Amino acid sequence: MANYIPSTTLVERVRAGDMRAVSRLISRAEAGVAEARDALAEIYRATGRAHVVGITGVPGSGKSTLVGKITQRLRADGSKVGIVAVDPSSPYSGGAILGDRIRMSELGTDPGVYIRSMATHGATGGLARAAMDVVDILDVAGFDTVILETVGVGQDEVEIARASHTTIVVSAPGLGDEIQAIKAGMLEIADIHVVSKCDRSDAIRTLTDLKSMLVLGARGSGADWRVPVIGTSVVSGEGLDELVDAIRRHKRIAFDTEMGRLRQRQVAEFRLLKTAEAILAERFVQQRAQKTAEYTERLLTRRDDPYALASALIEDSLKTD
Amino acid sequence: MANYIPSTTLVERVRAGDMRAVSRLISRAEAGVAEARDALAEIYRATGRAHVVGITGVPGSGKSTLVGKITQRLRADGSKVGIVAVDPSSPYSGGAILGDRIRMSELGTDPGVYIRSMATHGATGGLARAAMDVVDILDVAGFDTVILETVGVGQDEVEIARASHTTIVVSAPGLGDEIQAIKAGMLEIADIHVVSKCDRSDAIRTLTDLKSMLVLGARGSGADWRVPVIGTSVVSGEGLDELVDAIRRHKRIAFDTEMGRLRQRQVAEFRLLKTAEAILAERFVQQRAQKTAEYTERLLTRRDDPYALASALIEDSLKTD
Repeated sequence: MANYIPSTTLVERVRAGDMRAVSRLISRAEAGVAEARDALAEIYRATGRAHVVGITGVPGSGKSTLVGKITQRLRADGSKVGIVAVDPSSPYSGGAILGDRIRMSELGTDPGVYIRSMATHGATGGLARAAMDVVDILDVAGFDTVILETVGVGQDEVEIARASHTTIVVSAPGLGDEIQAIKAGMLEIADIHVVSKCDRSDAIRTLTDLKSMLVLGARGSGADWRVPVIGTSVVSGEGLDELVDAIRRHKRIAFDTEMGRLRQRQVAEFRLLKTAEAILAERFVQQRAQKTAEYTERLLTRRDDPYALASALIEDSLKTD
Repeated sequence: MANYIPSTTLVERVRAGDMRAVSRLISRAEAGVAEARDALAEIYRATGRAHVVGITGVPGSGKSTLVGKITQRLRADGSKVGIVAVDPSSPYSGGAILGDRIRMSELGTDPGVYIRSMATHGATGGLARAAMDVVDILDVAGFDTVILETVGVGQDEVEIARASHTTIVVSAPGLGDEIQAIKAGMLEIADIHVVSKCDRSDAIRTLTDLKSMLVLGARGSGADWRVPVIGTSVVSGEGLDELVDAIRRHKRIAFDTEMGRLRQRQVAEFRLLKTAEAILAERFVQQRAQKTAEYTERLLTRRDDPYALASALIEDSLKTD
């Protein structure tokens, strides 16, 4: 393209807070464009200022609405807020739904708020890598808080929400058994628990259940931090100031304590390994094509078994490396 | 252990339908025990008789109850039915929930039915590999139908349900927006659509919406098969016979047509690549340990970037291979 701006040139503009450059570089990071690699390395080295807040919860727990309310409150002192929504996407509409919902709200016209949806469709191992690249770009572009929102329904999505300074897990009353089972899988990662929809009469039970589960599990707390359980209602406004206050208090933990440093080491290790996984998978995909059809046929005839053929496929891929 | 029975010995007993041997070999397959590899290869080569039915759907769609009802009907002619339930698991209870729910039902005491839960907790790439090994074991043990049930909430879970002869996707009325978005991601994989809870008044709309989405998408149908949309109710019994009839009709497609052969080639390729991924990930995990701590520190200081360090980590792992 005649007017293709090199990614390394975009970095300067991102640093200056140019939002068109931010959007362009994010698109390249999402697509995994090789040309953007040096730029993203440069971006990474300039990060470290933004407070990254991960938020996850079961479907229907009201995360997006809550993100909207948190953002309004964080904006009160002029802080800039970036929102990265990792969404389940529809193959028919082609779009992502959570980000759109936030975008259409009152936040959509506020220049101090930037909202980006990332669709999970098709992306597997690369999703975590891409989401963290996008967070970096917003950090370097001058956003004070970057909220990383995922629907907590797959291991990847839950892990992404944990790759932050402060993780909020949202529960809600009145959801079914299966939803509750999914929820149980993410309880241990919370720095802050929220029970949303506390205007409902059955919310008391959800709060009580959650508190007793936490007593059983008792993780995430340390000398510096006791995981709070906050009931909120976007209808009455209950608990919202308390939640924003908890986010601000936990920011100090994240940046100024040994517990925070330990957490950032875990996040760095997660990021390192996820990136390595994505690179390995990509290489493997590029190189396997030729033999795959042949080995698939051999598997279909049942002469050979999956483990033996998969091992042979790997050897073939690495040989040509 | 003094009374450890070699896995290759278990294979003979599995072939004879010895259910204790089946359970033992399944446990070893789930754990990924290296000693069981030859046995699983032998099992694989003996497969090909059972009709594998994948069933998935959003949380709360009533899949487990439906599986119970289908199983009762398939049992009417004496067919043996194996059920593999891939469940979200709770880190606190340590258990899986869907399988338990079926096990506690009337099916639990029927010797012609075998139920096995597999927990997703902790397992990532290896889950698909393990689930397919378990299906193989039940096939060789003489089960006529093997039902593979997953909660359709992650890419892995949806793909597993597709690794079958016949895939059923269950929708239900009255679920929220986020759930609907998740659902959209799995519509295209169905050979048979079910809308459960059709005793509810809002089910008509779910049926209508689904049918119009299918007109838009129009996948999965061919000259031999038109994807049916079946409304069911476990309360009134509506649609259950029709569903079982559709399953039986699709079995013929799966075993006797070019369309079925094409599908089995896709399943074989999926299996080959998932197994390769699992092997690669395992090797990488074993060999990276030493350098990971060092590289994590370098990442934390922001001297180096994730991509460069991850690439270096991979080179180190492959070198010692």
